[in-house]
Amino acid sequence: MLLSQLFTKTRKEALKDEVAKNAQLLIRAGFIHKEMAGVYAYLPLGLRVLSKIENIIREELNSVGGQEMLMTALQKKELWEKTNRWDDKVVDDWFKTTLKNGTELRLAFTHEEPLTNIMTNFVSSYKDLPIYAYQFQTKFRNELRAKSGIMRGREFLMKDLYDFSRSKEEHEKFYEKMKEVYMTIFKRLGIGDQTYLTMSSGGSFSKYSFEFQTITDAGEDTILYDEKTGVAVNKDDDSEDIFADFGIDRSSLDLKEARSVEVGDIYSLGEKYSKALGLTYKNEDGKEQYVYMGSYGLGLGRLMGTIVEALSDEKGIVWPGSVAPFTYHLLCLSKESRIKNQADKIYDQLRGKNIEVLYDDRDVSVGVKFADADLIGIPKQMIVSEKTLEKGTEAIEIKNRKDGTTTQGNVGDIEL
Amino acid sequence: MLLSQLFTKTRKEALKDEVAKNAQLLIRAGFIHKEMAGVYAYLPLGLRVLSKIENIIREELNSVGGQEMLMTALQKKELWEKTNRWDDKVVDDWFKTTLKNGTELRLAFTHEEPLTNIMTNFVSSYKDLPIYAYQFQTKFRNELRAKSGIMRGREFLMKDLYDFSRSKEEHEKFYEKMKEVYMTIFKRLGIGDQTYLTMSSGGSFSKYSFEFQTITDAGEDTILYDEKTGVAVNKDDDSEDIFADFGIDRSSLDLKEARSVEVGDIYSLGEKYSKALGLTYKNEDGKEQYVYMGSYGLGLGRLMGTIVEALSDEKGIVWPGSVAPFTYHLLCLSKESRIKNQADKIYDQLRGKNIEVLYDDRDVSVGVKFADADLIGIPKQMIVSEKTLEKGTEAIEIKNRKDGTTTQGNVGDIEL
Repeated sequence: MLLSQLFTKTRKEALKDEVAKNAQLLIRAGFIHKEMAGVYAYLPLGLRVLSKIENIIREELNSVGGQEMLMTALQKKELWEKTNRWDDKVVDDWFKTTLKNGTELRLAFTHEEPLTNIMTNFVSSYKDLPIYAYQFQTKFRNELRAKSGIMRGREFLMKDLYDFSRSKEEHEKFYEKMKEVYMTIFKRLGIGDQTYLTMSSGGSFSKYSFEFQTITDAGEDTILYDEKTGVAVNKDDDSEDIFADFGIDRSSLDLKEARSVEVGDIYSLGEKYSKALGLTYKNEDGKEQYVYMGSYGLGLGRLMGTIVEALSDEKGIVWPGSVAPFTYHLLCLSKESRIKNQADKIYDQLRGKNIEVLYDDRDVSVGVKFADADLIGIPKQMIVSEKTLEKGTEAIEIKNRKDGTTTQGNVGDIEL
Repeated sequence: MLLSQLFTKTRKEALKDEVAKNAQLLIRAGFIHKEMAGVYAYLPLGLRVLSKIENIIREELNSVGGQEMLMTALQKKELWEKTNRWDDKVVDDWFKTTLKNGTELRLAFTHEEPLTNIMTNFVSSYKDLPIYAYQFQTKFRNELRAKSGIMRGREFLMKDLYDFSRSKEEHEKFYEKMKEVYMTIFKRLGIGDQTYLTMSSGGSFSKYSFEFQTITDAGEDTILYDEKTGVAVNKDDDSEDIFADFGIDRSSLDLKEARSVEVGDIYSLGEKYSKALGLTYKNEDGKEQYVYMGSYGLGLGRLMGTIVEALSDEKGIVWPGSVAPFTYHLLCLSKESRIKNQADKIYDQLRGKNIEVLYDDRDVSVGVKFADADLIGIPKQMIVSEKTLEKGTEAIEIKNRKDGTTTQGNVGDIEL
């Protein structure tokens, strides 16, 4: 894409009312627009990143048998009363609305109830299970404060997967598999090194539970982690006991402390929802059983914000190649027509190969081009200049956004 | 995909409270789930269709320079007061909600205001224009009644594109181009033959306007149309004058009357929003001008529902190949293991070629398999049977869902 055609522009100053680094950088670079606190629109560059994150997650979930669907934001009372979650005292962040006829509705903050209800239409026998269903869907949470940019939104895109299993054992097997799937996702998103499967205190159905925590100063949590073994614990739950219960000798670890953000959660739900909503199946002996469930969430904005927080530097964003809005940021360092023509040709050549390239074709100074490229954060800057043209019409220089190192290359050798 | 793995099942009876044919069929075939009137979840088969519709639209909009983004559902008062659309007397289908601190918010039914406001950050010179920005985003409309299935939802996915032009002339050139883009989209969606660019009474900025109407008994409108010339008029606006104003001699046409549904709308917005929200640019003479706008909507659920209404028969849905959830529905007509093994092999062969195939591997009767295949509506049924196996291990029969005709083929010849 030609940068001159992209409708967004970079800006030098952050918004005055924006305190989160991730949102400051993303707004300055033209990836997002702040509609109100905790509510952000994704502009073309931002949506490209969001879609790439979505596709990585989709590929990994499909690889373990996930079936994608799309549920609704509008929710009616009946289902949520059955699990006692309609009550404001139980759930304090509902957004409420009403139909013209006065019927009270709410905007979904999660989807256990509607999905469990949907499954009652399709599950009757042990042969129908297990089922792994997921969606990418907009969630609404009426947060009292929203100061973390796109890392904690009032309206945000979330992947939520639910497993419907025949037994605790079948559920736990999938739960263990999802631990690996999540780590694969975080690795592919470029935050694998900073992300720890972290022991924490239990949910409703287990003594302990697990969260995925990514080390970043912007996080709201604190973890203790051992780089060598990858073992980590939420500081709030640190004790000899929790380590011992997992068969780990705490004193053998070299634990460091760091601020971190919870980038993913995986929960055992047990039979809570299947009991409340009547989701049963007949087992091989014809006996009626409750379905055993789990839920697995990933906030896409939170992931994108975490990547920005964890990998940016003083010049701007540094995207991992897997989620960068484009593979290359093409910069022509001269206004001379023979060099500009050469850059145009290279741009056409790359497009012909279906390589994603953002070409800064603007009539601005080299300094402005580099400053914008560094702010936008595409990991590979492809440079065409008098110097490269001297080496041949196919010569280019690739500058690594992260560390500024350069390599010489040939545009003909660039592969998709 | 193996049909035995798909979590949905077909059902014989429609829901009692569902009056729309499109929703009845889609629920029976397992494409959608009714959450409440006008609010439907898309199950795996339904989401596949929806995504294919979305991708066709995306390709066509990108081909004319559309830039994709994603705005928010939550809306605050300030922007909408400037255009007088916050007022219930002006817009009667808002869904309303409030933040914890009491701030009144609403759920977007359209996005002229927020997008025009976003553009004020990026547009200053004539060089920044024109801009064509679009999104696929969930709209909320608090309809008093919602009886048309997925054709008129309270919550629905919509493509809305907006043009930001330097002048009426520049806008009109794009407006004309969008007429063609829309017809291309309807053709690719399989409803081109039934869809007419229909003259109707004007909007706020023109004497006349245009709508795209697809002929189906489920429609809420009536059009008069001439098959030969493709000329059509909304019956409400039929007059000698409207034809004359478009240079057409009404008496030369062979006008037929039919019920129809509005599948797309294209509006000139003039300077209404740019004036109200202060979106201006400096022209080549340095003079401040208002941006001239237009909007172009397509409801994805409405398109999917219209396809179902227009193309289904007494046996079920008949998808056009372009949006069918799978390219082939593979049916094995025997329980004999040598024939079943053969079908398994063919399934693997097709998957190896990345051909989308739904394989009915269930242990049910041939009658049930055909009834389900006809209801689900994949346009090509691929049959493996004793008869085909006699002809060779690669032999198959393709049955056309629409007219029941069959052709003999060879699985090796099937191309993506």
